[in-house]
Amino acid sequence: MTFSRADLELLRQTASGGACVLVSTHIHPDPDAVGSALAAAEMLSQLGARPRVILEDEVPSRCKNLPGAERIDVYAAAKTESPFAAAVIVDAGSLSRIGDVRNLLTPDAILFNIDHHVSNDRFGAVNFVDVECAATAEMLFLLLRELNLILTPGLADNLLAGLLTDTGRFRYSNTTPRVLRLAGDLIEAGAHVTDITNGMYYDIPSADILSMGAVYSTLELHQNGRISLLFARLDHLVEDPDTVVDIALSIRGVCVAALLSETREGKIRVSLRSKHSINVARIAESLGGGGHERAAGFRMKGTLETVRDRVLPILREEVRTKIDKPAFEEA
Amino acid sequence: MTFSRADLELLRQTASGGACVLVSTHIHPDPDAVGSALAAAEMLSQLGARPRVILEDEVPSRCKNLPGAERIDVYAAAKTESPFAAAVIVDAGSLSRIGDVRNLLTPDAILFNIDHHVSNDRFGAVNFVDVECAATAEMLFLLLRELNLILTPGLADNLLAGLLTDTGRFRYSNTTPRVLRLAGDLIEAGAHVTDITNGMYYDIPSADILSMGAVYSTLELHQNGRISLLFARLDHLVEDPDTVVDIALSIRGVCVAALLSETREGKIRVSLRSKHSINVARIAESLGGGGHERAAGFRMKGTLETVRDRVLPILREEVRTKIDKPAFEEA
Repeated sequence: MTFSRADLELLRQTASGGACVLVSTHIHPDPDAVGSALAAAEMLSQLGARPRVILEDEVPSRCKNLPGAERIDVYAAAKTESPFAAAVIVDAGSLSRIGDVRNLLTPDAILFNIDHHVSNDRFGAVNFVDVECAATAEMLFLLLRELNLILTPGLADNLLAGLLTDTGRFRYSNTTPRVLRLAGDLIEAGAHVTDITNGMYYDIPSADILSMGAVYSTLELHQNGRISLLFARLDHLVEDPDTVVDIALSIRGVCVAALLSETREGKIRVSLRSKHSINVARIAESLGGGGHERAAGFRMKGTLETVRDRVLPILREEVRTKIDKPAFEEA
Repeated sequence: MTFSRADLELLRQTASGGACVLVSTHIHPDPDAVGSALAAAEMLSQLGARPRVILEDEVPSRCKNLPGAERIDVYAAAKTESPFAAAVIVDAGSLSRIGDVRNLLTPDAILFNIDHHVSNDRFGAVNFVDVECAATAEMLFLLLRELNLILTPGLADNLLAGLLTDTGRFRYSNTTPRVLRLAGDLIEAGAHVTDITNGMYYDIPSADILSMGAVYSTLELHQNGRISLLFARLDHLVEDPDTVVDIALSIRGVCVAALLSETREGKIRVSLRSKHSINVARIAESLGGGGHERAAGFRMKGTLETVRDRVLPILREEVRTKIDKPAFEEA
């Protein structure tokens, strides 16, 4: 990413002299969203602004210990004197992704759009968008250097949280040499790698352990162990279902995994994960949901059993055609 | 670590001209041991030697896909023509740690000792020992640079396996800036970070998922949620008990965790893990076991219930004195 001098200058001017600047991110924020918002706020403070971080939703529990998280306001409870004429929006592909928080902007507000999503629609007056970055945190780190700001330990913690989680703890294919070297720089600057990782991945409510026990005991394997299914009844819902469906995909030999969970509104939520050439986004879309190629989901009326009987034949067919007998052009 | 020119020269000379060099590591090898042995063998090949990797024990299943692992011989089945006059021993604090493999050495064999353990007793003619290194893999990486060898993708995979696992996936306090920058270099050199991480952490036998379900369902919390206990009956033993006891320690608020497992020889194996100031090595030692401050264990006669009743009061007392009422000098 090369930053234009004009864009950097506009950011400096906008932030100077104690200007009130809104910082926000997408609804249902993940650690890259929260960490990047907090990092952006600190960078704005260094530039002279008075930033306010306001999100549509509550900060998830695993982000509550990030430095500065206590200063985040939730939209419904946020008191604002007047609308904001400037905002830094991080990790959001479009302005609609910040939810009702956009009601806090003046019609002509200057928007700085900092993001790494392929789907980003360039909604800002200034668009710092780099799809080569693994995380928005990585974008902010590059911007911080460009602006010659100080990498404080608090900034380092918030940026590390984003890098860690958007790369799946340095596991996904977006774990580039640059990502790891930046992580090294963050630790050198004082990031608390043990505390941040523990907070993101090792702070499980005890009720979740009991629920995971009950859910793991429901394991079904199909199609010669290529498909794994887990089932969660209402009394076994866990705070972080991603961990559970990731475990289902982690089974030796499994190519596609599904977690079927009862929901309070009476539907079954299906979370899909895949390895290799199985595109679960397409399956989820065909059933009214959506997502990414390797992680997608949908909701469907029925019981755990009826939804299983609806989904399993589709997964079987997918494994038969994509894994067991790959098409000629894929072989 | 600074390597002496004389030591480096001795290594070059020893390895030159097709010399047969033994490579080995400690019994019950972990990924840093196996990855480092394989990396050392490739480095010796680049220097002109014909290395043989011979270990006392089987390669653990999570290391079987490391590049070159198929060439590792197990001592009991290894055919050797004559004893080895030179050996590179990695990740072993003393020569006794390689088990019966030491029977394959001539009495005057030149030993190269490459390790990062504090307990290393400098058993080699050459001792490349640096306790500041997070992993023996890190030592080998520094040595590789010093020798100007080629960092092939296979070497990069083996070194990454060691760095990853000895830092707990870049989580423990030994995750220095250098570790992460070296990991970046390894990925740049072609290490397959997704495959290696999946092989180390996400290749779980399906029977283990069902067993983990049964074990998680036994969770007990004591002393206001500071102590967590899990119980594994013989029919619920898992291939990798470390994962299970780590989960017990990952529960919000828990300071000390124990997994009590039945064993085939009729004893109870107790695995202890701790956070903060609780020293589980001392507890394990007082009961006939051993280990590190944060991870230790022992075996005891009895049933799951009688051993629980023996251990729990000790853990309660530890939490009472160390966590609830820290001594004056620790406050």
